[in-house]
Amino acid sequence: MPKVVDHAARRESIVQAVTHVIERNGFERLTMRELASELGYAHGALNRYFPNKQAVLTASFVHLHDQADARISRVVTGRRGLDALEAMCREILPFGDFGRRAATVVLAFWARAAQDSEIGQIHHAHNMRWRNRMRQFLLQAREDGELREDIDIDSAVSELAVRNAGWQMQASLMGSESSDETIAQSLTAHIGSLRSETAAPGTDGSGTA
Amino acid sequence: MPKVVDHAARRESIVQAVTHVIERNGFERLTMRELASELGYAHGALNRYFPNKQAVLTASFVHLHDQADARISRVVTGRRGLDALEAMCREILPFGDFGRRAATVVLAFWARAAQDSEIGQIHHAHNMRWRNRMRQFLLQAREDGELREDIDIDSAVSELAVRNAGWQMQASLMGSESSDETIAQSLTAHIGSLRSETAAPGTDGSGTA
Repeated sequence: MPKVVDHAARRESIVQAVTHVIERNGFERLTMRELASELGYAHGALNRYFPNKQAVLTASFVHLHDQADARISRVVTGRRGLDALEAMCREILPFGDFGRRAATVVLAFWARAAQDSEIGQIHHAHNMRWRNRMRQFLLQAREDGELREDIDIDSAVSELAVRNAGWQMQASLMGSESSDETIAQSLTAHIGSLRSETAAPGTDGSGTA
Repeated sequence: MPKVVDHAARRESIVQAVTHVIERNGFERLTMRELASELGYAHGALNRYFPNKQAVLTASFVHLHDQADARISRVVTGRRGLDALEAMCREILPFGDFGRRAATVVLAFWARAAQDSEIGQIHHAHNMRWRNRMRQFLLQAREDGELREDIDIDSAVSELAVRNAGWQMQASLMGSESSDETIAQSLTAHIGSLRSETAAPGTDGSGTA
């Protein structure tokens, strides 16, 4: 009788190993052979799950974003408006050692996405989902009267997306300029700049989501 | 008598070819052999100028930044304060086809900088020079009374660096969300947010540099 294998779990462990290898050595040096060796798999066993490097990379990219989405969904539960928006950005921004390591992986994926239309499309679709989620929170903030009246929601979404991306580079390459404290202050100030002067934080509709 | 060769011009043409190859195919696929073929050089002739891929990449990175620095120096001449700061950011931000193509090269370099300490240090030093230049313009703006009183200059420099980086990713990977108009509006609004309400643009000390 053949051994029962949890294929989903095996795919997950492969994807995690890819992330580790990229963190350590970068995308360029990732080979199917190294990856199999990292996992203690025979080369052929790996091919069964992912036919080539491209398939592995795409799966890893999706995995990284799925993880972030799961964290975001957890932290925004029961929140709305600017409170939810701030919590979401806190999960995207590269805090701590994990954030910094993930930012390095993100940079590798961006470079690849710029060259590879499959990864590029996945990146684009994911970024649009994040933008839509931020837009939804900004619309709630407007509804609740906590958004400054002169804020244009499209522009605000764009600024948030730009800042979230820019901090990935800074955390990975400009560590001296991107302590957790610096990133946190920047986020607080930016969310503050969106807030109507008449709305006090946390007193206007939070928790009604 | 040996042919007289302009070595500086030859290095420059090699570096430009590298930039084209990276734009087209990405960093990963760049080989010394392809590069020699792009230039119509024998493999050995290329090695005379750059012993290996690493040396070529470093030179290209420096070249790209030198070009940007030259453009910045040109546009800030005779300007100071927020006016100079806006002109500087306009040269860094990825406007037009050239900006978008350059952003794709920048993304490739970032990924490499995260994995290679030599490129990482060059990137870091360059980014610090840009930060210092932006700081100088902000200090002039404070001197001239055009900077909002509650602006902290360190934080303002950090925000500018983050935004300039974030737009590189957006221009390369999120073209649908980063038209020239969108980037220009974002820059104008951000510089505007630094301006003291009592200072009218262009009326306070500009041109005294």
